[in-house]
Amino acid sequence: MADKDSDQIIVMKFGGSSVADAQHIKNVAKIAISEKERGKSVVVVVSAMGKTTDGLIKLAAEVTDNPPVREIDMLLSTGEQVSIAMLAMTIEAMGYKAKSMTGWQVGIKTDAEHTRAKILNVRDKVMREELRDGNILIVAGFQGITEDGEITTLGRGGSDLTAVALAAALKADCDIYTDVDGVYTCDPRIVPNARKLDIISYDEMLELASLGAKVLHSRCVEVAKKFNVPLQVRSSFHPDVLGTKVIKEVKEMEDIVVSGVAFNRNVAKISVLGVPDKPGIAANLFTVLGEAGIIIDLIIQNVSRDNINDISFTVSIDDLKRAMDVLEKFKNENSAARIVADNEVAKLSVVGVGMKSHANVAATMFQALAENNINIENIGTSEIKVSVLIREKDLDKAVRAIHEKFNLSEGH
Amino acid sequence: MADKDSDQIIVMKFGGSSVADAQHIKNVAKIAISEKERGKSVVVVVSAMGKTTDGLIKLAAEVTDNPPVREIDMLLSTGEQVSIAMLAMTIEAMGYKAKSMTGWQVGIKTDAEHTRAKILNVRDKVMREELRDGNILIVAGFQGITEDGEITTLGRGGSDLTAVALAAALKADCDIYTDVDGVYTCDPRIVPNARKLDIISYDEMLELASLGAKVLHSRCVEVAKKFNVPLQVRSSFHPDVLGTKVIKEVKEMEDIVVSGVAFNRNVAKISVLGVPDKPGIAANLFTVLGEAGIIIDLIIQNVSRDNINDISFTVSIDDLKRAMDVLEKFKNENSAARIVADNEVAKLSVVGVGMKSHANVAATMFQALAENNINIENIGTSEIKVSVLIREKDLDKAVRAIHEKFNLSEGH
Repeated sequence: MADKDSDQIIVMKFGGSSVADAQHIKNVAKIAISEKERGKSVVVVVSAMGKTTDGLIKLAAEVTDNPPVREIDMLLSTGEQVSIAMLAMTIEAMGYKAKSMTGWQVGIKTDAEHTRAKILNVRDKVMREELRDGNILIVAGFQGITEDGEITTLGRGGSDLTAVALAAALKADCDIYTDVDGVYTCDPRIVPNARKLDIISYDEMLELASLGAKVLHSRCVEVAKKFNVPLQVRSSFHPDVLGTKVIKEVKEMEDIVVSGVAFNRNVAKISVLGVPDKPGIAANLFTVLGEAGIIIDLIIQNVSRDNINDISFTVSIDDLKRAMDVLEKFKNENSAARIVADNEVAKLSVVGVGMKSHANVAATMFQALAENNINIENIGTSEIKVSVLIREKDLDKAVRAIHEKFNLSEGH
Repeated sequence: MADKDSDQIIVMKFGGSSVADAQHIKNVAKIAISEKERGKSVVVVVSAMGKTTDGLIKLAAEVTDNPPVREIDMLLSTGEQVSIAMLAMTIEAMGYKAKSMTGWQVGIKTDAEHTRAKILNVRDKVMREELRDGNILIVAGFQGITEDGEITTLGRGGSDLTAVALAAALKADCDIYTDVDGVYTCDPRIVPNARKLDIISYDEMLELASLGAKVLHSRCVEVAKKFNVPLQVRSSFHPDVLGTKVIKEVKEMEDIVVSGVAFNRNVAKISVLGVPDKPGIAANLFTVLGEAGIIIDLIIQNVSRDNINDISFTVSIDDLKRAMDVLEKFKNENSAARIVADNEVAKLSVVGVGMKSHANVAATMFQALAENNINIENIGTSEIKVSVLIREKDLDKAVRAIHEKFNLSEGH
């Protein structure tokens, strides 16, 4: 994928905790310099230092409850600008050429959706010139500029997204440095013998990311997949240890039926009870939720009895209040009997590209749950994933049982 | 000077202490809104909040003793960007349209002298569009952009300079809000009955500014004079009180012989003793100092005796060490006997355009000093100024005596 000329470019991304103070910034500088010493052209993307962004949001809250999104972006984008200047100074003080650049200086063009802008395109010309001059190039993550010259920010996972977008433009590899040393078969805080994966496919990573594994944000994985950017997740505290490579699916991956177990406590179940069994009612329900921008998942519709249906589904807890408001209106217009919210549930999923060619993954999973007397409330599947909704209190036990059942700590 | 169309534009500038926190920012928002309510198109220039700039400089010092100037500008320019976003949010929260803009967004073009850049030109087109849309336009002071798209800062007095440059581009008036309510005949901390001046000429203000009166920086007065921008110095704590207008010299000003008494403790006297009385030696001395970028003032050369001269002059205390280093070399190359530095001196000046047409200002001044047994060491004059060098310990007494002698507390 990478052409000969640019084989040597590496884009490295460090999050806020990796640049939290002078000491941490020096550590990042050393990691960047060691890549330069290996003969690579180095681009570093950084987030705002430590809790800077939270501090700025708090500052804005002192003057208004409802700041205009344009001005939020003007405010928040300063956080990364401080980080890039600090890192560039630090690298120069260590005797290497460095140059910081903001999103607009690099030419990261976005749409005009302030606070959650999408990257439209990235110019590689300016970056290539700086790299050719021997500079370690330090780019502000999380920010861009519209066609009209307005500063935008990219929202959650924005700096990861910046890094992958730059790597795509430069046809470079992208290393995401974080506070864990890779992607695990499960959260080690729940499953102590969880195993670090050496490789994982984009699709598997996407499922894990969107299912609540917090290592990489799904937006960045999507872009990496689209432009075939080789990603690596690794630790800024153990830069000599290889992390987890996120790559295009290869044949060998199919031998691994399940790559990981993910879970998400941040879900709520909504049940719409007593809906008349008329054509179009379910469609109607999901249309009003969709129009309100609420993403729904794990839908179950009960078999009709007496021409009355019950429909239940899950939403993110963040969307619960808004969903209930929308549904109150739906209830009155569609003569539903009751809307019930339940946030004592959790979603649990097994993910693996091998599922495509191996049957009975769901059966094995359900068996593990049954052996532990754990009831399955809703179910959802994709080509490479099986998700179930269970009581939140059963989650830890369920995760361990499934991790054990698929022998995930042993590897292949 | 102002054309009809733009009669109504006002550029207001608020310094760091005026936007130190949320409460102060709300106060600034109210002042800006009250101008808008009077039917004016309003541009507000702000500095970084409170001690932000100092904080950023301290942060940089944690990673390097010698930060690259380009990166200092990248770092420091974030301070004003935070202020403009905060002020724009505050004004919007009060129900008025506002829009913040950085230096590069407005199009404040500078040279590439990082940390002390000069403004080359300012586009008025973008600003006029925003004003026409009814926005209160909030512009970051102290910063600009080079032709190559590099962020620069303007150095000391930079935000005042930004305000005056924008006013010049918009053919607008410029109000500089500060923590005092105008320009006084002398520093009220030394002369309690010092009087606030209603008007003062650019040239007088320039002399006062460069002589150590800290109300306005001389760079901003120079630009105001050049483009004939009507300036007003006024208080952000008493916005209803008129301040001091700094304007082009008018005939009536000549009736006022002395407008103010200024002083500067931040000077040192250097004496070069025992210099051979050969042609070109003095020129040589001032050439080497000039080449080192050291500004000298109040020069005295003693009458030659035995073909040996003594030369003394003043420099800013900030330049003293550098000057002494340069002079050590000069001494050796020119067989001077001794170089003596003395920083227990102070400069005292009387300023007034009326001097041009009135004799004996110097005589009156010297008489006041003589009556108080204060010795004059060096003297310097310009068309509208007489300066003397005296012992620093005599300064307060001298200032009061001269202020009294010229009846400055009584006005005209």
